[in-house]
Amino acid sequence: MSEVRPLFWKEGRLHLLDQNLLPDRVEYRVLSSWEEVAQAIRDMAVRGAPAIGVAAAFGMVLAASGALTAGKPLAPEISRALTGLAATRPTAVNLFWALERMRRRWEQSLAMEGEKATAALEEEALRIWQEEEEANRHLARLGADLVPPGARVLTHCNAGALATAGYGTALGIIRAAHRAGKLEMVYADETRPRLQGARLTSWELVTEGIPVTVICDNMAASLMAQGKIDLVVVGADRIAANGDVANKIGTYALAIVAHYHGVPFYVAAPTSTVDLRTPSGREIPIEERAEEEVSCWEGRRILPPGVKVVNPAFDVTPAALVSAVITERGILKPPYPESLKAIR
Amino acid sequence: MSEVRPLFWKEGRLHLLDQNLLPDRVEYRVLSSWEEVAQAIRDMAVRGAPAIGVAAAFGMVLAASGALTAGKPLAPEISRALTGLAATRPTAVNLFWALERMRRRWEQSLAMEGEKATAALEEEALRIWQEEEEANRHLARLGADLVPPGARVLTHCNAGALATAGYGTALGIIRAAHRAGKLEMVYADETRPRLQGARLTSWELVTEGIPVTVICDNMAASLMAQGKIDLVVVGADRIAANGDVANKIGTYALAIVAHYHGVPFYVAAPTSTVDLRTPSGREIPIEERAEEEVSCWEGRRILPPGVKVVNPAFDVTPAALVSAVITERGILKPPYPESLKAIR
Repeated sequence: MSEVRPLFWKEGRLHLLDQNLLPDRVEYRVLSSWEEVAQAIRDMAVRGAPAIGVAAAFGMVLAASGALTAGKPLAPEISRALTGLAATRPTAVNLFWALERMRRRWEQSLAMEGEKATAALEEEALRIWQEEEEANRHLARLGADLVPPGARVLTHCNAGALATAGYGTALGIIRAAHRAGKLEMVYADETRPRLQGARLTSWELVTEGIPVTVICDNMAASLMAQGKIDLVVVGADRIAANGDVANKIGTYALAIVAHYHGVPFYVAAPTSTVDLRTPSGREIPIEERAEEEVSCWEGRRILPPGVKVVNPAFDVTPAALVSAVITERGILKPPYPESLKAIR
Repeated sequence: MSEVRPLFWKEGRLHLLDQNLLPDRVEYRVLSSWEEVAQAIRDMAVRGAPAIGVAAAFGMVLAASGALTAGKPLAPEISRALTGLAATRPTAVNLFWALERMRRRWEQSLAMEGEKATAALEEEALRIWQEEEEANRHLARLGADLVPPGARVLTHCNAGALATAGYGTALGIIRAAHRAGKLEMVYADETRPRLQGARLTSWELVTEGIPVTVICDNMAASLMAQGKIDLVVVGADRIAANGDVANKIGTYALAIVAHYHGVPFYVAAPTSTVDLRTPSGREIPIEERAEEEVSCWEGRRILPPGVKVVNPAFDVTPAALVSAVITERGILKPPYPESLKAIR
């Protein structure tokens, strides 16, 4: 069976799978304004760096079509949407990359009538979507070659079809390896606090008949010590020019324990995740999310009063801990400053 | 204010704080049979290696007094209780250590009348309880000397008053350091799957006005990279003759990331946790607990059907990652085979 779709575009509306309801309910939100898209990104109804980028691109189309329908000038609305969508989440660079592509297309369309300009933006968003999915399928094929027969693969968070334009980055590689008959087991970190591994990765995999075992994040090292993990593959929210990788909180600890055990640690991402303008991980802004994600469970507080919480949504894995970066343009090895520059 | 008591002995009954209800409710179970004690250990109403040992010792008293009241011979009941209590949980050695002390005391009492033998067992259990609490207070004083002024200390699970005969091992050191004015912040891993850090450690500390910040287990490495952790201190469920340490799942990953960042990693435990008959961590049995601890939340399944789960309750940290073992008989440094042997 084919993989799930985190979003699709139909009759000028963005249909967005509400990932906060998974795995209990499969429900699509139908969004008709850029503000609704911005809200869905903030809520994490859509999440995952590539998926956020694609959703934001369609948000720009909705900004244009909304102004058009209301008989208003497009430019101020386009400008507001660019700012508003860019302000939703700070870490994943695909968001800014997609908005930049939409902004450039808009600038090329300034001389057009509103309807044509809107159509041009729609075309650009659809192209981003399609290119991103193709990039996933391509990098998945490349990455699957790194997976040995009978592999036990560990992944963190969800870098699957749900996190991308479709197919997935880390899970794309896992899908391709499964189809090649090389996969014995996927171990999925549950990924606290929001449990994307437990709720989303496990759901994506079990839906396609790929064997998956969920573990608590703190169990990975113990499995490695027992020789039960052959490789780790994760996605990325931003890859800096020096090869440092921002990804879901917990990725860094996983990279350290993989390194300690001599287990290969791969990062899978389309080139839209590579940000040569960010020199190193130090310059990547790390989103701090609401305390309630840690302190509450389904609205009920689980911590005693007076206890503090911190909740960084991402961490930075230094390039030195990354065995390879798998992109649609090739498998990159250290030194990353050179190999990353070569593909952009 | 004085710290909480995980258990106390009153009028021939064991009063046991039900830790599964914390931090929402402070409720003591009143236990009058060894079977109830065994059930409470299995349920984890009482948990933490030293606390389990003390509870089991009182369970032996209840076995004797129960037989006495029923007018039955003591020996068969003592024998059943020794076997039954030993079968509750496999990893923490304090359980077997306490039962062995009770067994020896029973053997010394074979010639006595039932009433006197029961009194001897009660005396032994009370002595174990008292000695264990004194050991905690002593090791806490020793350990506090290792804490620098303004320290930010990270701990995992709960090695507090709740986990011990009172006062605590890792949290004993934290308490003593706080009283010495040296503590800036305690970071408590929430400790999946059972959240002992979120529910118990944070509650113990906030109750005494010790500043505490709860983090998800996967955030510790990121805090260390930011230079926010000065040392790690954890308890232990069993320390093998070579210095390998079994402790709550996640301890091993924490030790690796501490080592990677050059952050001292201390293990605090009374000598009752040292098991010279276990040569190394390889020989320590690791309890595998019910899948539902990972797959469910308050009885509701959070994973899709068909997803597998593993749930090892403990892991083994190799001696090479342990900066020091803090016991009531001194602060032990490598080589542990020698330093551990010297104190037993």
